[in-house]
Amino acid sequence: MKIEGLSLLGPARGQRGGKKFTAINPASGEVLPGEFHSAAGEEVETAAQLAAEAFTVFSQSSGGKRAALMNRIAELLEVHEKAIVTRANLETALPVARLQGELARTCFQLRFYGEAAATGLCSGARIDHADPGRKPQPKPDLRSLLRPLGPVAVFGSSNFPLAYSVAGGDTASALAAGCPVIVKAHPAHPGTSEITGTLVQQAVREMGAPAGIFSLLFDDGFEIGAALTKHPLVKAVGFTGSWRGGRALMDLAAARLEPIPVFAEMSSINPVFILPEMLRQKPEELAAGLHASGTLDVGQFCTNPGLVFVTVGGAAKIFLQKLENLMGATPPGTMLTAGIGAAYRAGVEKFSRVPGVRHHTQRIQKGTSATGDSQAGAALFVTDEKTFLANPGLMDEVFGPSTLVVECASARDMPAIAGKLKGQLTATVHASMEELAANHELFALLETKAGRLIFNGFPTGVEVCHAMTHGGPYPATADGRSTSVGTRAIERFLRPVSFQNFPNAALPDELKEANPLGIWRLVDGRGKI
Amino acid sequence: MKIEGLSLLGPARGQRGGKKFTAINPASGEVLPGEFHSAAGEEVETAAQLAAEAFTVFSQSSGGKRAALMNRIAELLEVHEKAIVTRANLETALPVARLQGELARTCFQLRFYGEAAATGLCSGARIDHADPGRKPQPKPDLRSLLRPLGPVAVFGSSNFPLAYSVAGGDTASALAAGCPVIVKAHPAHPGTSEITGTLVQQAVREMGAPAGIFSLLFDDGFEIGAALTKHPLVKAVGFTGSWRGGRALMDLAAARLEPIPVFAEMSSINPVFILPEMLRQKPEELAAGLHASGTLDVGQFCTNPGLVFVTVGGAAKIFLQKLENLMGATPPGTMLTAGIGAAYRAGVEKFSRVPGVRHHTQRIQKGTSATGDSQAGAALFVTDEKTFLANPGLMDEVFGPSTLVVECASARDMPAIAGKLKGQLTATVHASMEELAANHELFALLETKAGRLIFNGFPTGVEVCHAMTHGGPYPATADGRSTSVGTRAIERFLRPVSFQNFPNAALPDELKEANPLGIWRLVDGRGKI
Repeated sequence: MKIEGLSLLGPARGQRGGKKFTAINPASGEVLPGEFHSAAGEEVETAAQLAAEAFTVFSQSSGGKRAALMNRIAELLEVHEKAIVTRANLETALPVARLQGELARTCFQLRFYGEAAATGLCSGARIDHADPGRKPQPKPDLRSLLRPLGPVAVFGSSNFPLAYSVAGGDTASALAAGCPVIVKAHPAHPGTSEITGTLVQQAVREMGAPAGIFSLLFDDGFEIGAALTKHPLVKAVGFTGSWRGGRALMDLAAARLEPIPVFAEMSSINPVFILPEMLRQKPEELAAGLHASGTLDVGQFCTNPGLVFVTVGGAAKIFLQKLENLMGATPPGTMLTAGIGAAYRAGVEKFSRVPGVRHHTQRIQKGTSATGDSQAGAALFVTDEKTFLANPGLMDEVFGPSTLVVECASARDMPAIAGKLKGQLTATVHASMEELAANHELFALLETKAGRLIFNGFPTGVEVCHAMTHGGPYPATADGRSTSVGTRAIERFLRPVSFQNFPNAALPDELKEANPLGIWRLVDGRGKI
Repeated sequence: MKIEGLSLLGPARGQRGGKKFTAINPASGEVLPGEFHSAAGEEVETAAQLAAEAFTVFSQSSGGKRAALMNRIAELLEVHEKAIVTRANLETALPVARLQGELARTCFQLRFYGEAAATGLCSGARIDHADPGRKPQPKPDLRSLLRPLGPVAVFGSSNFPLAYSVAGGDTASALAAGCPVIVKAHPAHPGTSEITGTLVQQAVREMGAPAGIFSLLFDDGFEIGAALTKHPLVKAVGFTGSWRGGRALMDLAAARLEPIPVFAEMSSINPVFILPEMLRQKPEELAAGLHASGTLDVGQFCTNPGLVFVTVGGAAKIFLQKLENLMGATPPGTMLTAGIGAAYRAGVEKFSRVPGVRHHTQRIQKGTSATGDSQAGAALFVTDEKTFLANPGLMDEVFGPSTLVVECASARDMPAIAGKLKGQLTATVHASMEELAANHELFALLETKAGRLIFNGFPTGVEVCHAMTHGGPYPATADGRSTSVGTRAIERFLRPVSFQNFPNAALPDELKEANPLGIWRLVDGRGKI
């Protein structure tokens, strides 16, 4: 597939003439083929207008039609797997096998969310029948369902060039909801974005969907993303990235004449609490599990376990020795971009300078010109709870393969420490059955801090299912009432609309008395199919 | 019940010493008994600390326990109906019968939302079973449910001194969700607020609920409300009032270190579209219905129909003549406060000055010193679509018994006009069955503009049920994805939390395999009880 380097505006290609940029291979520092043209301000306008026009038809299309479109996107991605994975590997240095898995996940997501749209899973249909004889006033017939918000701006993430980028989770959620999507491509993988976007565009054309439901805008700066977020026709934003980037979008969206919701998944250190009995039972196995979770794909996961609490003692020593050995033996890896590599090294250096923090690995390497400063070695830090609590900077995310282990005097201190943590995507507890039963306070506290609690497992690996919450209180996400993974993610882009005293024939199918779609509905307060 | 004039801080009374204010009888201009002490900044701190402490226990209490508390509050309100209604009537000039009805609604709401908590209606329980044999990776067991956000700040509204004030819809939603509540009392009905608040406090004590789940703060300025909204322990805001007030809270909340959601119900003119055939069939009946809806309780409803579209012609003449007669014969009424009366008169004067707008009633009266400037007469304005579209100020809400009728050249123009409207709580269409079928475009457009569509009815009268949406796109509300009436209002104060690979015994009851609470759940993608 030839790379043109132009934005996609509904059915058409964008113009040349914008600021140009290229993709860099982070493993070699080399410039990759293809010259990308940043979109112009008027192209944001065009994309928004196209999306708003398309919304009129797309918002009224059936869930089944939307599912068919999403299935076709998945098919085309599968057909072009080789081109996508090859380019993504060059642009991100993520291994081919990982990218193949990520593509499969992307396609699964599209089909799964499409199925949710087709089966009315997210229709939220509710019916309250009239009661004309009710005193003092007759009760009207009221029926409600969830309807799409309007055009959604999606910001591709750097660390999931497929599953949370152009045709990723936010796009799939928005399309399933009936919302047109305008993607701001991540400048670290523009070629992957263009290939993927072109396939989405093709699927839209083939399936006869309104052409304006998908646009893709290039820019290696912040202007186009900001303009998109501020555009009056854009009604919501989906974002995965840094806290700084997410917060900037939140602030822009909140300052609009019409504020809009921003669903930004931003920053999490994913604390792991290891209770003493469990630590005694398998210190080395826990160290191995944590090491694997924390260094997977150079630690570039939102759910990377960056903070581990253990109780001080003999078992902790064995655990730390093993973890130190494993981290020390981990070869350096190539991070997604030179900028991410530099930020990682700066974070590691910041931690190293905190008095009372032991720095257990020497694998931090400065990049060379040949590797474009993208190399990163695993870093292990160890400290005690006092030092941890006295240095709030130790709660900052260091995006990459860095883990801080905090030795607590007693498991009884853990709830108080948990209470000091910021919002997280996940919180993990390793405990024996007795410890699980005896530490209700810790679990209750963690529930207020994280979107997902994991028992005797590791936080990486985010299952795409109905019960997943990949969200959490701020600053993990912009709005802790949301998830960006799982079918609940679709609800972010929906709003309830009620119909009062409408004749049956004029109601949306979801609300017709006979339930022609056969969906689950809340009828007079009871769940019914 | 003696009025002390002091804030309520959990189980205790607040201090004296703050800026003092009194309640005014808007019908007479007289000062009512009782001197109210504005809360001090440190009382905000105390209330927030008490709420956060109480949250630990309250958030983990069963829905049944919360329902019992809410039932007890309703009982106490009923026992003290006379005291509440008498004082509310003096403070608001709303008729006794209306206030009795509002009290009944308030109690119904408390019981209804409590029942939703008890039966797990808003638990959002989802279960995805594990699949250890799945390739390439085993599928974990994931279960999720909705959990409370934390302490909620509730701002009492002026126009519903019972149903959307101290023990009103926002408070009932938050308590049902498991969130402690700190109410900022509306200064226009402080006595009613104190009586109600004292009964809530009594119920909390009697039922053994954590004392910090309810506080009530007085202030006749903006400082306490602002401090509450900015307090780090407050996790959400519920508000019903003006656009200016709501937007100020939204901006404060968005600028916090940790931004929080604000659910503000603010401003709506509730457009009514009368299609020509329907207008021909019953012009006088429609005029009478609109007049009744628009002047009820001096037009002081969020869902007051302030804007009506008809097609020009003979039927419109009959309709307008009837409406003019009815409006002209409407005696002036007493508005909630002198300030609201003044704002109403200013709004009416603004409309009167627009060239091309006919002013059909003379009933606008300046207040006298005896009536405290609270008197308002019904106002009817008539214009054509061109003038309407050329003067965006005519889309502003005039809170009170004012209605603007816009004569359109043709019903075919209505969708384009609807497309120009801002977000609304409701949109109403009067149409024959043929017109209903032929005007899909109009209905599809209105669906994007309003939270509730009404067919051949009137917007006032907001049913408290499962399928109600009392919300709508900005500026009708801060977040068009929410409703402040109906059981869906509870969800505003909830967030999803997932449990991964937890042993059955350690799961919340809502998620235990055997479904001990007998609630509806989404199990492996299918609804089940």
